[in-house]
Amino acid sequence: MRPFTYCVPTDIRFGQGTVSCLGEALGKYGRKVLLVYGGGSIKKTGLYDKVMEQLKGYEVTELPGIEPNPKIGSVREGARICKEKGIEVVLAVGGGSTVDASKAIAGGACYDGDPWDLVLDSSKVKAALPIADVLTMSATGSEMNPGGVISNPETKEKLEVNNPHLYPSLSILDPTILYTVPPKQTAAGTADIISHVCEQYFQPYDGAYIMDRLCEGVLQTAFKYGPAALKKPDDYEARSNLMWAATIGLNDLLSRGKGGEWSVHPIEHVLSAYYDITHGVGLAILTPSWMRHVLSEKTEARFAMYAKNVFGIDTGDTRKDAEAGIDRTEEFFVSMGLPKTLHEVGIGPEKFEEMAKEAVRTSRISWDAYVHLSPEDVLEIFRMCE
Amino acid sequence: MRPFTYCVPTDIRFGQGTVSCLGEALGKYGRKVLLVYGGGSIKKTGLYDKVMEQLKGYEVTELPGIEPNPKIGSVREGARICKEKGIEVVLAVGGGSTVDASKAIAGGACYDGDPWDLVLDSSKVKAALPIADVLTMSATGSEMNPGGVISNPETKEKLEVNNPHLYPSLSILDPTILYTVPPKQTAAGTADIISHVCEQYFQPYDGAYIMDRLCEGVLQTAFKYGPAALKKPDDYEARSNLMWAATIGLNDLLSRGKGGEWSVHPIEHVLSAYYDITHGVGLAILTPSWMRHVLSEKTEARFAMYAKNVFGIDTGDTRKDAEAGIDRTEEFFVSMGLPKTLHEVGIGPEKFEEMAKEAVRTSRISWDAYVHLSPEDVLEIFRMCE
Repeated sequence: MRPFTYCVPTDIRFGQGTVSCLGEALGKYGRKVLLVYGGGSIKKTGLYDKVMEQLKGYEVTELPGIEPNPKIGSVREGARICKEKGIEVVLAVGGGSTVDASKAIAGGACYDGDPWDLVLDSSKVKAALPIADVLTMSATGSEMNPGGVISNPETKEKLEVNNPHLYPSLSILDPTILYTVPPKQTAAGTADIISHVCEQYFQPYDGAYIMDRLCEGVLQTAFKYGPAALKKPDDYEARSNLMWAATIGLNDLLSRGKGGEWSVHPIEHVLSAYYDITHGVGLAILTPSWMRHVLSEKTEARFAMYAKNVFGIDTGDTRKDAEAGIDRTEEFFVSMGLPKTLHEVGIGPEKFEEMAKEAVRTSRISWDAYVHLSPEDVLEIFRMCE
Repeated sequence: MRPFTYCVPTDIRFGQGTVSCLGEALGKYGRKVLLVYGGGSIKKTGLYDKVMEQLKGYEVTELPGIEPNPKIGSVREGARICKEKGIEVVLAVGGGSTVDASKAIAGGACYDGDPWDLVLDSSKVKAALPIADVLTMSATGSEMNPGGVISNPETKEKLEVNNPHLYPSLSILDPTILYTVPPKQTAAGTADIISHVCEQYFQPYDGAYIMDRLCEGVLQTAFKYGPAALKKPDDYEARSNLMWAATIGLNDLLSRGKGGEWSVHPIEHVLSAYYDITHGVGLAILTPSWMRHVLSEKTEARFAMYAKNVFGIDTGDTRKDAEAGIDRTEEFFVSMGLPKTLHEVGIGPEKFEEMAKEAVRTSRISWDAYVHLSPEDVLEIFRMCE
């Protein structure tokens, strides 16, 4: 195992009805609250009212309208409001996009320049307002990690800001809130969880046995409960296991002792920066093709291990097992109603080359990923998804 | 899954050579240090010198002589020194016992009465000095949890103090320090890890699928690397995986969403309070007999699941698989050189009845454990170990 530090201070309140602790728990961080949310679905579901009930006695300023793939414009606006109003705590009520935006806002509020600077160079984050959240979508793990992905439509960039100051201080995870998540989002969220864990599982370094086993446990959970949550949206066991799988899937735990760049995310980030598709959908399309592209004599043992420990595939033929594990992954995404090709989401080959170069330019995949990927490799992966 | 809170603020520094960050990292918590350690093995191994080198510029008071199964007398002494000298941070350099004692000292330093009060009633811990540690034994997980077990020889009690104020602030985990841990301690530590995880795996509540998978991952790690560390004490891969397994095995992660009293620990605590044997040795003796005693039509499915997912035993006959899993557990302990019977550690049946009653009196095993245990049940388990 590689050396690592691990310090995740987020206060998690997990379970049915935990929203009711918000009023008391938030007070520790401040009374002047910036309430950040998305397109207004929280008003339809009644969650907005529950949150406002908890915020009695707080001074609340609202910032609605955070987009999926949150844009730097919203971040700038949020940071401006924080400075203007003397906001003390940023409260995100939403999914990963809203939490991500709130992190960048919380950092931007304590930074003198343009918040986009912080996305371009995370080390510039020297302080941030405390961040709290009530999660309405379970996928990105943003509720217990220090990262956030922000898009800049002008430059067609979609990049991550990541700094220890950006761990949420308080995250309220109530699986019953997920009952109203639409099937498409449940499916995309499950793909996101699986992709996060696969990114940490397929890494250059190999001595972190315990991490591999933990990864497989989270993967098994996602593969089991994704379909269960689709079938019965108010299945508490499914929603709660899936919700915690998303959190554990990206709260630093699984990455420790390993190391290296992720493979599929940098490619998907370019894809969704160019076409604004749902992140989890992009991942579901790209992941099986990436797996097939990097499968080789050198990597087949790990893919076979994945097949065995996650799906119970064990014929004894390493290559066949590896291929069967990849097929199962692809079949799973299709069974969840996710698209299999870029064509299905309206993306043609016009910008494949440009995007392939961009994926390599904006990441370390060409020299630090599980299998190093050149622009030609990424182009080939795009073509496999065509 | 049951509702839970999760907030583990410990700053972990894991890897070879991480002791070198002590001097810088400790400063955040204070300059007046109580250095707590055990019987002096840290002087033989040279760790004491390395630590003192790091503590240049700090005002250090030493409290050596912490016993295995740490005694309340040492805690009282430590708390007294803290008050007298205005100690700001308690630094444990040792194994679980030293860390446990340091927690009670840190709590006692901020408490007006007798520290034993805090062990009898953990809710009386209202504050504690910051706790830091450099771990020399990997087993109890004390480096990342808020609990400590303290013995009172006068009352023959061995009880746990457990309070959120007692999470270590800083834990330095260098697997190379474990190279000098003697085989007996390596074996006992491995048994301790396995027992901790089993206690969390065999619980009354059943909807926490993800936790079961994570438990199995940690168990697989301990079963794999315990023997590897015995065979080659300076096997970095083995020591590091085992070290992190111990931490993950009891840092709140695996218990969340489940619930209920542990089964074997309350029995072992009485045993080692009466006979002062090594905790892990007591657990290794008791665990297989406890498993056999509680195996029934009601529990066999979970024991078969344990056998399948940890050892790959899968004949399709639930009862036989369950029994085979228990046998494998016992054989494993024996293969590690651990005793199988109480007789081997010099314990006769004289106090079985008294200890059985005491185990029930001092815990919730009779009404809140995986299988409820009466004094007669515990007596039977002792007899099975005779």
